[in-house]
Amino acid sequence: MIEISNITKKIKHSEIRKMYNKALEYDNVISFTLGEPDFTASKNVVEAGCEAIKIGQTKYSENAGVFPLRTAISEYLKKTIDVYYNPVDEIVATPGAMGALYLCLKAILNPGDEVIVNMPCWTNYIQQIVMCEGKPVAVRTKKEDGFNLDIDKIAEVVTTKTKAIIINSPCNPTGGIVSVEDLEQLAELAMEKDLLVISDEVYKHILFDDQNYTSISSFDGMKQRTVIIDSLSKTYAMTGWRIGYAASTKVIINSITKLQENVSACVTMPSQYAAIEALSGPQEHLEYMVSQYKERRDYMLKRIEEIPNISCQKPKGTFYAFISIKDTGLTSEEFAMNLLDKNQVVVVPGTAFGQFGEGYIRMSYATSMKNIKEGLNRIEDFVMNECCV
Amino acid sequence: MIEISNITKKIKHSEIRKMYNKALEYDNVISFTLGEPDFTASKNVVEAGCEAIKIGQTKYSENAGVFPLRTAISEYLKKTIDVYYNPVDEIVATPGAMGALYLCLKAILNPGDEVIVNMPCWTNYIQQIVMCEGKPVAVRTKKEDGFNLDIDKIAEVVTTKTKAIIINSPCNPTGGIVSVEDLEQLAELAMEKDLLVISDEVYKHILFDDQNYTSISSFDGMKQRTVIIDSLSKTYAMTGWRIGYAASTKVIINSITKLQENVSACVTMPSQYAAIEALSGPQEHLEYMVSQYKERRDYMLKRIEEIPNISCQKPKGTFYAFISIKDTGLTSEEFAMNLLDKNQVVVVPGTAFGQFGEGYIRMSYATSMKNIKEGLNRIEDFVMNECCV
Repeated sequence: MIEISNITKKIKHSEIRKMYNKALEYDNVISFTLGEPDFTASKNVVEAGCEAIKIGQTKYSENAGVFPLRTAISEYLKKTIDVYYNPVDEIVATPGAMGALYLCLKAILNPGDEVIVNMPCWTNYIQQIVMCEGKPVAVRTKKEDGFNLDIDKIAEVVTTKTKAIIINSPCNPTGGIVSVEDLEQLAELAMEKDLLVISDEVYKHILFDDQNYTSISSFDGMKQRTVIIDSLSKTYAMTGWRIGYAASTKVIINSITKLQENVSACVTMPSQYAAIEALSGPQEHLEYMVSQYKERRDYMLKRIEEIPNISCQKPKGTFYAFISIKDTGLTSEEFAMNLLDKNQVVVVPGTAFGQFGEGYIRMSYATSMKNIKEGLNRIEDFVMNECCV
Repeated sequence: MIEISNITKKIKHSEIRKMYNKALEYDNVISFTLGEPDFTASKNVVEAGCEAIKIGQTKYSENAGVFPLRTAISEYLKKTIDVYYNPVDEIVATPGAMGALYLCLKAILNPGDEVIVNMPCWTNYIQQIVMCEGKPVAVRTKKEDGFNLDIDKIAEVVTTKTKAIIINSPCNPTGGIVSVEDLEQLAELAMEKDLLVISDEVYKHILFDDQNYTSISSFDGMKQRTVIIDSLSKTYAMTGWRIGYAASTKVIINSITKLQENVSACVTMPSQYAAIEALSGPQEHLEYMVSQYKERRDYMLKRIEEIPNISCQKPKGTFYAFISIKDTGLTSEEFAMNLLDKNQVVVVPGTAFGQFGEGYIRMSYATSMKNIKEGLNRIEDFVMNECCV
């Protein structure tokens, strides 16, 4: 029998996916599990993708992506976070943020190198670090701090083996954003301790209440120690197009590009051309989606406040609500499984985002208002009648 | 300064790409470098891709690919190599054969595990093995044996650390195919020594002179120790769509799928739907392309025979001619560089396919007959006038 590698044995399937599969056993289910917009890409993007296919822009590209795409990304970054990245050698297009993150970690980690991760978090970070033989070091973010970074704690866990820290603002699953003051302190720490900051910015445009986005790479001295990880999946409702990118120093981008040559060659070409249109074309679709997410968030929060024993820190961004269910007396897993079993609503147990997610469930509001209303009716019924506190 | 990982430092950029970039410095260049069809996908495939985009089939799919695609692959494999793979858990769609190969190696290799590679070969194999911390073990194939496998030599280099052997028939760059007798002997060896055979079959449909294709997985007992690696890139002229697949045992496919969840999530969705059409729809476009490649191969071989000091084993498949230039007195690198410099023709030095490629150049005939004619005129002139034998 052919034996599987030790690293592969350590890798776990996503708990979100498990919940999703479990739900398939039930009828009439309302799902709040998936981390993707319920919208599709805007008409101009759809047309740009089709046009690329029709005119045969379907050959291999440079491993880093076609130059017009890298130029569009460069202009977009300058416009949105006010940092200039040279399209020649500081940007690489990847299959989603996923591809950028994995290759970035692969480009920098030697066995045993440590990466600080703020948890609860999207646990693919952990799997990716393990795949690259690094060691994830968890630092907790707390509801009472608005899920902001705990900079003192981060400073405490830095060792000589610490290579990088991953931040994700706005954060999946908490909806929290890192304050500018915390970003400044983190930047100081990164410079003092020679750390790389991997800044996962995929939700940066899904921000509510007129907040502005600040990228840590815009601080003095930080461009050369930040890797911006971004994707068109959430911003432009392009999950299945599989396109994202990394922007960083020439050395890191060259390394990612070199590795990508052996992993996927390049991003699918029609997606590259659709992405140029998404980044450079009209942005109304994004504005519309964000307004919809805001309306849903507000409704959801209002309903949650009315239900006893559950509560939620108001998400500042993303399309997730991270809801404390501690006072129901159930564990996250029990809450999620019983809710599905009794009332056919699927949510993700907080433990799918690491051990610090215990006591929470995540609900995505990237679903219709109709679903949100009916789902919350069922949750209310469940908490009132099935949670035996 | 953020240090790059040791593995990343070991990875080299493709020599083919280097030659390609070098050529950009010249005007009026004729290129024989690229390993992709000069055709594009057929009309029905183009339409299927566009239709998927238009109707919003652009969300995430299961990590292994949508079930209708896996079903189409299963039916296609049954039809073409007469082996049944269960679409439920024995097939995973990947970003090209590239993605399948990398994740397959990652799924099985522990540090120091050995993988036997028949060389000259597509050197991404070597880079991928190194990326997975394995050790490539080269076994030479020779022009005088029609670049067939050297089974005795392969048996000799097997150690307790040998985990797998990669075969590529028809072979890039040699155009050779592995004989059925050699496949049988290799199957015996694999079973005796408990080896996995990674069978890169991406050129299996580009076969000339009425040869039939035999996959090693069709031999008794071999399905459970073979990983079929295939791609739609060459067969259906779909390089930039980035879609391929692996077919193997449930354990290996589950491992690849689990890893893919952290590397690229899934194949781009419009490509998945285009691939269903390519695999299940009419096959005339493939037949047409193969007939064109054959015509070009025959012309190219005839011309090469007429030029002194260069010679070529007739390629049985692929769209490459691997041409011995030993008798010109130049090294592969000198031949390629001087040819570009003096006569503006780009070919790939054989050394881009490993050390055993010294004395050869690779010419792709996935280019127009017009280019082939003019290119060979220039090569003839170069060999007659610039090679000082």
